[in-house]
Amino acid sequence: MQENKASRNLNDRFTAFISRHHLFTQKHRLLVAVSGGVDSVVLCHLCKEAGFDFGIAHCNFTLRGEDSNRDEAFVREWSKQLNVPFHVVKFATQQYSEEQKLSTQVAARNLRYQWFEQVCVEHEYDFILTAHHADDNIETVLMNFFRGTGINGLTGIQPVHQQVRRPLLFAKRHELESYLKWHGLSFVQDESNLHDDYTRNYFRNTVLPLVAKTYPEVQDNLLDNIGRFNDVAILYRQEIKRLSKKLLITRGEQIHLPVLLLQKTPAMKTVLLELIKPYGFKATQLNEVIQLLGSESGRYTLAPSHRILKDRKHLIISPLENVADTAVVIEKGTGTWEFAKGAITLTKTSVATPGKEVHVALLDEALIQYPLLLRPWRAGDYFYPLGMKGKKKLAKFFVDQKLSLADKEKVWVLEMNRKIVWVVGYRIDDRFKMTDKTKSVLKIEWRSQSKKPMD
Amino acid sequence: MQENKASRNLNDRFTAFISRHHLFTQKHRLLVAVSGGVDSVVLCHLCKEAGFDFGIAHCNFTLRGEDSNRDEAFVREWSKQLNVPFHVVKFATQQYSEEQKLSTQVAARNLRYQWFEQVCVEHEYDFILTAHHADDNIETVLMNFFRGTGINGLTGIQPVHQQVRRPLLFAKRHELESYLKWHGLSFVQDESNLHDDYTRNYFRNTVLPLVAKTYPEVQDNLLDNIGRFNDVAILYRQEIKRLSKKLLITRGEQIHLPVLLLQKTPAMKTVLLELIKPYGFKATQLNEVIQLLGSESGRYTLAPSHRILKDRKHLIISPLENVADTAVVIEKGTGTWEFAKGAITLTKTSVATPGKEVHVALLDEALIQYPLLLRPWRAGDYFYPLGMKGKKKLAKFFVDQKLSLADKEKVWVLEMNRKIVWVVGYRIDDRFKMTDKTKSVLKIEWRSQSKKPMD
Repeated sequence: MQENKASRNLNDRFTAFISRHHLFTQKHRLLVAVSGGVDSVVLCHLCKEAGFDFGIAHCNFTLRGEDSNRDEAFVREWSKQLNVPFHVVKFATQQYSEEQKLSTQVAARNLRYQWFEQVCVEHEYDFILTAHHADDNIETVLMNFFRGTGINGLTGIQPVHQQVRRPLLFAKRHELESYLKWHGLSFVQDESNLHDDYTRNYFRNTVLPLVAKTYPEVQDNLLDNIGRFNDVAILYRQEIKRLSKKLLITRGEQIHLPVLLLQKTPAMKTVLLELIKPYGFKATQLNEVIQLLGSESGRYTLAPSHRILKDRKHLIISPLENVADTAVVIEKGTGTWEFAKGAITLTKTSVATPGKEVHVALLDEALIQYPLLLRPWRAGDYFYPLGMKGKKKLAKFFVDQKLSLADKEKVWVLEMNRKIVWVVGYRIDDRFKMTDKTKSVLKIEWRSQSKKPMD
Repeated sequence: MQENKASRNLNDRFTAFISRHHLFTQKHRLLVAVSGGVDSVVLCHLCKEAGFDFGIAHCNFTLRGEDSNRDEAFVREWSKQLNVPFHVVKFATQQYSEEQKLSTQVAARNLRYQWFEQVCVEHEYDFILTAHHADDNIETVLMNFFRGTGINGLTGIQPVHQQVRRPLLFAKRHELESYLKWHGLSFVQDESNLHDDYTRNYFRNTVLPLVAKTYPEVQDNLLDNIGRFNDVAILYRQEIKRLSKKLLITRGEQIHLPVLLLQKTPAMKTVLLELIKPYGFKATQLNEVIQLLGSESGRYTLAPSHRILKDRKHLIISPLENVADTAVVIEKGTGTWEFAKGAITLTKTSVATPGKEVHVALLDEALIQYPLLLRPWRAGDYFYPLGMKGKKKLAKFFVDQKLSLADKEKVWVLEMNRKIVWVVGYRIDDRFKMTDKTKSVLKIEWRSQSKKPMD
């Protein structure tokens, strides 16, 4: 009787959770991901009792031979019992994970979600339902916490993520087990538990029980935390959004960030990281960007798609294709990089004799720092032409070389820290040339688009 | 040599931490709290090497007999060696904790900080220095996390708290131990460790080492977390401040909070709690206040100093002394409460015979809900006088009772949920009287200020 009440209670909390988080309604068609384990079996039963319109999807990962087939047969039978559509697929998970060089766990997840989405399209399901529950959520947050995280890592598994809905997040594992027992439902050893990593099981079975000895309410405390941290994260993001509006000034394709205003901002480092993250900059680059604040004009930091340039009183964030046509960032001293005018190949060598080949540059490797930037030349560029003492504007250099207007337009330069290293196909910079002291040579070879080296 | 470098490194990081957090300078006089344990011995040595102007304060808590005296002697000797002023005090900690009904730990802390502050005044010290270090900080945050916390609990021990400065927060315990060993410093078994609670030691010695098996970098990860959460907390508080300005409208002594605007606010519950916290409302009252949002006008919730009243489209927060002179909140059905006109005492009894004593009210306890509010009557008040069927305005009742203007001004009422329960010293409300069905009686006795019961 007690248990019946608790079970009834779970049905009510299930529908209450769904409507509170606006997960879905009776009008939607739901695809429930079912491994056959306790959690997904209970999820189906709750959906059935609540009268939702759903089908079942089961992945056979073929990782455990006959056991995998047994699970598939079980879920097929369970679908029949519930009288709902059944979708099944067999994956060559092992093979896929080897081909794609992924862990079995990641491979299984990729395959699974790709297929779910496909089933949704083909059979007109609105949402994918998974059986993640409160214990999963606690374990996830705990692992994030110990692994190091910002506020987002403490908000846990979200009830809504793209097409996925997770209507069991409110329920604890033991509640699902009681429900299952009360209704006399069968289940199989959940295959997904076997993919589940060692760390999660360690936290579940070893760390959490130890903490519970001191704080018996630890599960509820952590769930309450997750609720609060979701709110904190919402308010935090609002504040970041407000600061973005205040600090980022859009100028055409560029974003200007006033250095003084930024430096006066409380929690400056965190704010700066949040401001540059959307442009592809990583937390590991933060210190580099902070150094830009105090550096002379012209210094910059690169992300795959954007550049942050220090320009007097501002940091200027620009898309790279805008900065320099389709500029190319060269992160290290070996390899080949394609660009609009062909490709350049960098190699290191200990011996090299400078020749007349203008499509090859031989530089003192010790003087080169990465990243390098390959970009079209622009007005105002200058360099120290090889063999000359002084510097020369590129415009003047091209006149001396008697270049046509059309030829001039095609010229690209290789740049390091605002210094031109090589006017590609014409002349290297005197400051980076090989000398008697050179121990290692950086050889850069350019093949033009037409595959004919230019000379 | 390696170790010397690490030790040197600690000196540099010590001064860097102090200047980065603006803790103090060479101009300040510092009082270092020294138990004689590793941490505080190292703190003194670092202060000496950095050339800071400091004295040593030692508390003898007399909790461990001769051991306590040995510690005191050790610290006295250590002060001589360092050639700095020594301040010492003996506390009858056990006696104090029993008198004040405090745990030994809390008692010791109270005594210690009170005395430190006194020494600072008498001997012109600017700041009190304690030797809390990174491991303390990690353990504190971890305990908060498992006990349940908001963002503030994840920001850890602060380097600055009132007059206290904590310049060792950057250092790990093992670094302090290496420093001590390298410099060949002596120390005693830190008495404060004995006061330290069981939980902290459990986390230090059992939980953290287990987590480190999976995440060897857990200490650094948690320290990084603390840094990030401090920034998150700053940005969170800024957003709360902005929302306060937007949502709270000051009207004289009252604060108006527009219900619709509040309900549209993201993370509403958390925002609401932050808005009402400064007025003494607790997290445990939050659901009650949320219910007010949808309730009819006139309902309210009380904190010791303030009331939140639902009034049509607003919640109105008012100071109680303003709402009703020096109104008194009665939270439970037994005890004595002082107020401007004397005191009332509430007791529960199973048998009582109503008499003529108007300074005593006998009510059906089952009908009474807490808190009750004791306040001066005001225009518009009405009640159902005992023995009458209908309701009557108090103004009319006083006329019938032939009260003088001066007497009228002195009348107070006891109110429950906007209903008057008792016109104190005159008449109870008919709705709350004892009947045949009454099982338990709430007896309320009023003694007037002059200690003469009024009748």
